[in-house]
Amino acid sequence: MSRTDTFHSPCRAMNGRGHAGGRVHDIDRWLLCSFLHILGDPPVRASLWDGKEVVSPEPAAAVGMTINDRATLWRLITNPLLNFGDDYSAGRIEIEGGLVAFMEAIYHGMNNGPGRFRRTVYQRMQKDTNSLSGSRGNIHHHYDIGNDFYRLWLDREMLYTCAYFPRPAATLEEAQIAKMELVCRKLRLQDGQTVVEAGCGWGALACYMARQYGVTVRSFNISQEQIDYARHRAAAAGLGGQVEFVEDDYRNIAGRYDAFVSIGMLEHVGPEHYRTLGEVINRSLKEEGLGLIHTIGQNVPQPMSPWLLRRIFPGSYPPTLREMMDIFEPWRLSVLDVENLRLHYARTLEHWLERFEENKDRISGMFDDNFVRTWRLYLAGAIANFTVGNLQLFQVVFARHHNNQIPWTRSHLFAGPGEA
Amino acid sequence: MSRTDTFHSPCRAMNGRGHAGGRVHDIDRWLLCSFLHILGDPPVRASLWDGKEVVSPEPAAAVGMTINDRATLWRLITNPLLNFGDDYSAGRIEIEGGLVAFMEAIYHGMNNGPGRFRRTVYQRMQKDTNSLSGSRGNIHHHYDIGNDFYRLWLDREMLYTCAYFPRPAATLEEAQIAKMELVCRKLRLQDGQTVVEAGCGWGALACYMARQYGVTVRSFNISQEQIDYARHRAAAAGLGGQVEFVEDDYRNIAGRYDAFVSIGMLEHVGPEHYRTLGEVINRSLKEEGLGLIHTIGQNVPQPMSPWLLRRIFPGSYPPTLREMMDIFEPWRLSVLDVENLRLHYARTLEHWLERFEENKDRISGMFDDNFVRTWRLYLAGAIANFTVGNLQLFQVVFARHHNNQIPWTRSHLFAGPGEA
Repeated sequence: MSRTDTFHSPCRAMNGRGHAGGRVHDIDRWLLCSFLHILGDPPVRASLWDGKEVVSPEPAAAVGMTINDRATLWRLITNPLLNFGDDYSAGRIEIEGGLVAFMEAIYHGMNNGPGRFRRTVYQRMQKDTNSLSGSRGNIHHHYDIGNDFYRLWLDREMLYTCAYFPRPAATLEEAQIAKMELVCRKLRLQDGQTVVEAGCGWGALACYMARQYGVTVRSFNISQEQIDYARHRAAAAGLGGQVEFVEDDYRNIAGRYDAFVSIGMLEHVGPEHYRTLGEVINRSLKEEGLGLIHTIGQNVPQPMSPWLLRRIFPGSYPPTLREMMDIFEPWRLSVLDVENLRLHYARTLEHWLERFEENKDRISGMFDDNFVRTWRLYLAGAIANFTVGNLQLFQVVFARHHNNQIPWTRSHLFAGPGEA
Repeated sequence: MSRTDTFHSPCRAMNGRGHAGGRVHDIDRWLLCSFLHILGDPPVRASLWDGKEVVSPEPAAAVGMTINDRATLWRLITNPLLNFGDDYSAGRIEIEGGLVAFMEAIYHGMNNGPGRFRRTVYQRMQKDTNSLSGSRGNIHHHYDIGNDFYRLWLDREMLYTCAYFPRPAATLEEAQIAKMELVCRKLRLQDGQTVVEAGCGWGALACYMARQYGVTVRSFNISQEQIDYARHRAAAAGLGGQVEFVEDDYRNIAGRYDAFVSIGMLEHVGPEHYRTLGEVINRSLKEEGLGLIHTIGQNVPQPMSPWLLRRIFPGSYPPTLREMMDIFEPWRLSVLDVENLRLHYARTLEHWLERFEENKDRISGMFDDNFVRTWRLYLAGAIANFTVGNLQLFQVVFARHHNNQIPWTRSHLFAGPGEA
């Protein structure tokens, strides 16, 4: 029996016999073929537990997948967006030819296939878990697993957000410094100004702004490990008087500032709270202040994959530009500048994944094998999501609608030292 | 009798007596005071037809208004957003101290006053008049009133959209050239490429792109006077083989192009048709093409003033960024870059108004006095709308979501000749 004609899919004639994980039946092969057809027949080879290729696309595919037993096949088919990740992490699904390339092939198929799979078949609405206490739990889950772990694959300054590569070949270290410099220039920071930062990671940007631009910074974060690290580094750098790290939620920001900046926090805010974030911005920005939000985004609203929500980033959501307007519109804030750095995030993640693999043995000594595979899939999948265009990276600069002291052009972003 | 206490408004004690336009009664003064209070007590002096100031703000206001008769006062109060313009145009309302400054004071008051006047009291939904035939009528109304008229106050190249001033002191001629250059750089135009232009005015940009970048351009416009002019100028410049001007609606664009560009047309499209515009873009943009839309916009959705809709721009509407997403989202187009040139449009309009006033006598020879005052109010009111932040100017660059040939950074926008 072959479903090739019915589905026009690249399935092999199904006459193999199973061994390792039990005998492979025609129904197993048919399920796998049908499943890949719904996924848009991505250019990937696929094998079951007898080791024989069930799906062999023409022209030959560079990447392939092996499913190690029948239970895994059924789990994959019944809830792929959750179980592909879990079964990959557990070693029950193996990928050949490169995980990034495999994920790119899958995402391309899902975007262009007949089923528009992700949106129509498996779409689930996300629940809001970002209350004051819920956010603490969500952030703790990801950011408090150990600074030593992050130090193994982030840049020297410990920035865990998209870098800015002036040239594609710039190093990660150069690109993260360039990102901080770009942000400072977009905010037009001046000596003596005050800045409030919502979500500060390990404090790199706050210290950079204080040191390079002579501003006073108040940074908010609810990750205790990050705050501890940030306080220590600021003190060590002699910036204790200029930078204050507050272990509190962005919703509790008080005071008025010349600049509001938030790099990589909006992903954790949740669309239900954008209006509240706008309220915080509106009450904390001085009349002639500038603000900047840097966030992962997307072109059409789709929920995060349930695997990513459960295993990596609980409560997270990358907004569309339309959704982001809930932050600005109620307060008549003007959007001055949007820059999409999508390919810079792919490049950033490539650096991270490369360092992660270089330090695989040390990470294996800190965590179990499931953890290593989970994080590998998360990083590789993120690269693929950026290269195929499922995810975007928006830097949005804004000001009050009547602020006529806004930058006249963007030429200061590219001026040499002293020229800006 | 005085309402000062009741309203906390800067009304004079009301004991004057009328003359020219009939006797001024206490009720007239009370109406004027109440009306200005609803407008947020803007810092403007106000007098009625006896010439005496009814409203004298403290500190002294630099601008003032005189209403010449009772019928005008009543018209103003019952439908200010329509009748202020008509009565100003007819000479029944006089403004002292500068029309731009007066309009700025009024808009500030309306934005900050207790009534949030414009939105809550007089908001009306706009009707969609932008069908294929409706658009022709709307465009004819404004753009076909005579090229000789526009030539008197536009720049040499006849661009009737926001210019880009590299320095605030640049001339209008320099700034319009700089705008065209900026647009070409944002589109990354290359020799031999094809461009489609939706709405081309008098053809300046199409000719610039062809001459400076060696591209082939197809430009669509439904203003017959503009198309005639554009064809003539292209032929005179020897660009007839490279630039084609098509007298047709943007909805009838066919073919596939390396770039899609639309400068100052979206204001005439109407939100009901953004999705259709997106469909046109989606079918005409090559896989690795770039697009740019340049449009007046706003931070919160508000209908155009009924006066502007009736006397100046029928069928027009400046979108919010949120509303613009109706163009992009259904086709998963990526927004790459948004630049807000609000203050550049104020500056552009100041140049236009200055040239308009310099040529007032010649314009008076072409049209009646009502026309001159109508256009003066339109230009002055537009300056005020941009300086107080009621209007924005968005340049939006976009591409397909999977296009990885997008510009890596924006540095090419600022590179010198040969560096980009």
